[in-house]
Amino acid sequence: MINILFAIFTSTDGRMNIEELQGFAKKSGFFWPSAEIYGGVSGMFDYGHLGTLMKKKFEAVWLNFFVERNQNYYRIEGSNILPEKVLIASGHAERFNDIIVGCSNCNTYHRADILLDELGIFVSEGATAEEMDKAIRDNNVKCPKCKGELGKSRAFNMMLEVMLGPEKKEKGYLRPETAQSVYLNFFREFNILRKKLPLGLAIIGKAYRNEISPRQGLYRMRELTQAELQIFFDPENFEIGENTEILNRMLNVVLYKEKKQKRISGSELIKEGFPKFYVYHMCLIDYFYKKILLVPDEKMRFLEKGGNEKAFYNKVHMDLEINVESWKGFKEVGGLHYRGDYDLTSHSKGSMQDLSVGTDKKFIPNVLELSFGVDRNIWMLLDLFSVNEEGRSLLKVRNFIAPFNIAIFPLQKDEALINLAKQVYSSLKSKFNVYFDESGSIGRRYARMDEIGTPFCITVDFDSIDAKSENYMTVTIRRRDTRSQERVQISKLPDILSGEFESD
Amino acid sequence: MINILFAIFTSTDGRMNIEELQGFAKKSGFFWPSAEIYGGVSGMFDYGHLGTLMKKKFEAVWLNFFVERNQNYYRIEGSNILPEKVLIASGHAERFNDIIVGCSNCNTYHRADILLDELGIFVSEGATAEEMDKAIRDNNVKCPKCKGELGKSRAFNMMLEVMLGPEKKEKGYLRPETAQSVYLNFFREFNILRKKLPLGLAIIGKAYRNEISPRQGLYRMRELTQAELQIFFDPENFEIGENTEILNRMLNVVLYKEKKQKRISGSELIKEGFPKFYVYHMCLIDYFYKKILLVPDEKMRFLEKGGNEKAFYNKVHMDLEINVESWKGFKEVGGLHYRGDYDLTSHSKGSMQDLSVGTDKKFIPNVLELSFGVDRNIWMLLDLFSVNEEGRSLLKVRNFIAPFNIAIFPLQKDEALINLAKQVYSSLKSKFNVYFDESGSIGRRYARMDEIGTPFCITVDFDSIDAKSENYMTVTIRRRDTRSQERVQISKLPDILSGEFESD
Repeated sequence: MINILFAIFTSTDGRMNIEELQGFAKKSGFFWPSAEIYGGVSGMFDYGHLGTLMKKKFEAVWLNFFVERNQNYYRIEGSNILPEKVLIASGHAERFNDIIVGCSNCNTYHRADILLDELGIFVSEGATAEEMDKAIRDNNVKCPKCKGELGKSRAFNMMLEVMLGPEKKEKGYLRPETAQSVYLNFFREFNILRKKLPLGLAIIGKAYRNEISPRQGLYRMRELTQAELQIFFDPENFEIGENTEILNRMLNVVLYKEKKQKRISGSELIKEGFPKFYVYHMCLIDYFYKKILLVPDEKMRFLEKGGNEKAFYNKVHMDLEINVESWKGFKEVGGLHYRGDYDLTSHSKGSMQDLSVGTDKKFIPNVLELSFGVDRNIWMLLDLFSVNEEGRSLLKVRNFIAPFNIAIFPLQKDEALINLAKQVYSSLKSKFNVYFDESGSIGRRYARMDEIGTPFCITVDFDSIDAKSENYMTVTIRRRDTRSQERVQISKLPDILSGEFESD
Repeated sequence: MINILFAIFTSTDGRMNIEELQGFAKKSGFFWPSAEIYGGVSGMFDYGHLGTLMKKKFEAVWLNFFVERNQNYYRIEGSNILPEKVLIASGHAERFNDIIVGCSNCNTYHRADILLDELGIFVSEGATAEEMDKAIRDNNVKCPKCKGELGKSRAFNMMLEVMLGPEKKEKGYLRPETAQSVYLNFFREFNILRKKLPLGLAIIGKAYRNEISPRQGLYRMRELTQAELQIFFDPENFEIGENTEILNRMLNVVLYKEKKQKRISGSELIKEGFPKFYVYHMCLIDYFYKKILLVPDEKMRFLEKGGNEKAFYNKVHMDLEINVESWKGFKEVGGLHYRGDYDLTSHSKGSMQDLSVGTDKKFIPNVLELSFGVDRNIWMLLDLFSVNEEGRSLLKVRNFIAPFNIAIFPLQKDEALINLAKQVYSSLKSKFNVYFDESGSIGRRYARMDEIGTPFCITVDFDSIDAKSENYMTVTIRRRDTRSQERVQISKLPDILSGEFESD
């Protein structure tokens, strides 16, 4: 029952450091660097068959919780390439910058904030090139690669350009956030959907950033997947509905003015002056992570951004952070941004179209953005739920997030067993993600499924085919978390398994 | 019951021409030009809420039919940006060209083949710049825009470049086909998945082409969605399994050597020399379109490409074409390509990694590619299934392809009706895509749902709330195609509707 993958777990509880997690992801089929056979591309990852299954399941759960349960919320899809004028209007062409600094000796570029942060030198998140240079000089910082002198810091626009047309003169950019595609389509959707507010429009799709030091696994990628919901609303009239009980949820919050984590209920946060609709959505996010994904309470917090740290158009901005073992601390996986009317006002001006709504009272709808990095969430799930219990490596994610729902094993390489196992496989394949494996010891096969989170293993053995009639044929179901096994009739499998997934 | 959208249908059977179809798609919520408020971007489209629902459903049905039913076939996901060396190795940097010709007067560029084709001048699909120039001179072709003299034709690479890194020196391309991401990941997946062939790896994702004259709706896009399955196999041993009956399917085929459409069975085609595994997959595709999507037999054909028309690495190449009203003829929606060992051999050389497999016998797996344009299929579905029957506009797609499964209407703007309708909505929302609409006459609401294909409308009326007890509350279900209405108990709705979708 020894699995070669065990070797990469060093700590006793199965928690992985960064290299271990990346090694596990690569060896088992979750993700690895893009164009790996060519040496990889920094900041880009491809998803293998397991990672793709898990990512699509996360996306489906996210979509169901935040979008599909609402009467006037919908998913749309927009081009990844946007024309230059869109990103001039949105402010990204001018302001979507990182401060970078090059080494005058080896010519390597660094992101100034990351360079300083890694040396424990504090600069505020929105620091200017001048402030970075001052911190570099004051602390006598050298190039971490060659110890050479660093040049002058400068603003560097992180968008990736694409030149279209026969002469490559039509400038576009790969969108830096999916949100922009939504703002461009708001007005048409609003009109098609009978002019009702609030209107929610979500996109799950790619965004692109020319990251300079993308050395943080799925946390800093040049091509990433976002799941973003933009809620358009009348700021004078944004009812949160009848579900006010959710405001009693206890949240872990670091307020900008306090810089210290505290536990506070949603209702209390409203009393501290945060808008009710904003706090309501904090509570929804809290519920999603703790009750749907089962993230432990103490692993999750909201971090308020203020001053230079937050984008200038945000009225309220909190990052959602989850404490992961691999990074030894809190890492951002999402955010809740009250963007005011900045976006639609900008695009009204940029496009010279009136995007205001209303008949009696004309106004530009406000935007509340729920923004999540899908890749970061996948990393977070692998980090939090990979555990080692009694010498077993388990991915203890919830059943509906596990890549495979079910594995089917014929006990031995015996034709009759294999044929029956294939029949069982076929009967379940249309409803579940099923993995079929006929080789290796049964213990090894169980161990392999434990490690990638498969909640149920079904084994076909000689007792299965000995039954008097087809109706009485049985197999064993083994559960991932308890290792308990039970014999059930094959004919009852679809119902039993459906029940398990529905009640999960 | 008059719907304003009726106005755009001019022909009596409801078939739409190109402008009508685009108008319908835009007004009802399927798709429209990207960045529309900025005047649009040629060759790029965004999907609205209806288009996104339908696209995701098409993708799910495709995935289920071609990928998920197979034991060793999986979906993966790869970066859209690929490093330059990948596309040098694949041959795209050198060969992925269109022949373009510029006007020396107005400076407009044209794709030479399209320009000639629109004038009815025949050139073969793979014609060189010299051949194009000869055809232009021989026929005295002028610029269609300004009647100016055309310059010299030249090869133009259709890939879109992206420059990465702080000095924008790391050259990459947006992938011109999803297939390349699969070839890059074959070897790792093959090893993780226990070294079994055939291995199928599918990607549903974006591909990019710098099209010069993208004026063909969803048929020629600069950013498109492909659904591609690459099957890796041992050419000496590719068993098609027990389902040989499917080879009896009658196919509409235009063979390269014959240039004339004929009806022929799969088995006969094998006798004509096509590989059995190739014909088997033609029959699968035929089944998918005719039996799953219900495309009429006479609307579909396979067109064999040969000579210059087919990519040089393809051993057998057929386009799948569907005859649509809007384009007044057959248009490509997919293809079946026997690519031999070209791809893995190229990337073995390019990456200097040995991608051969096997122990006794070492060999490079061959590739059979099933390639589909998702956007084109959405266009095709809207074209074929939008009909006008007895004065009604209907989108008669199958239930599981329709954007909304169900619509819920309170008969009037009455609080009790609306509340009950919302309860019904909530009880169905987790299982189905449900639309809720409380305004306008009931006839108008039905008409709107007919037009976008919603198979079931549920109306809550005063009889519904008059029932003695909750158990006896009833609503009417109205069916799209027959307009038949029946009263059913609310408590039985989930089961009745599930049954309808399962038996569809």
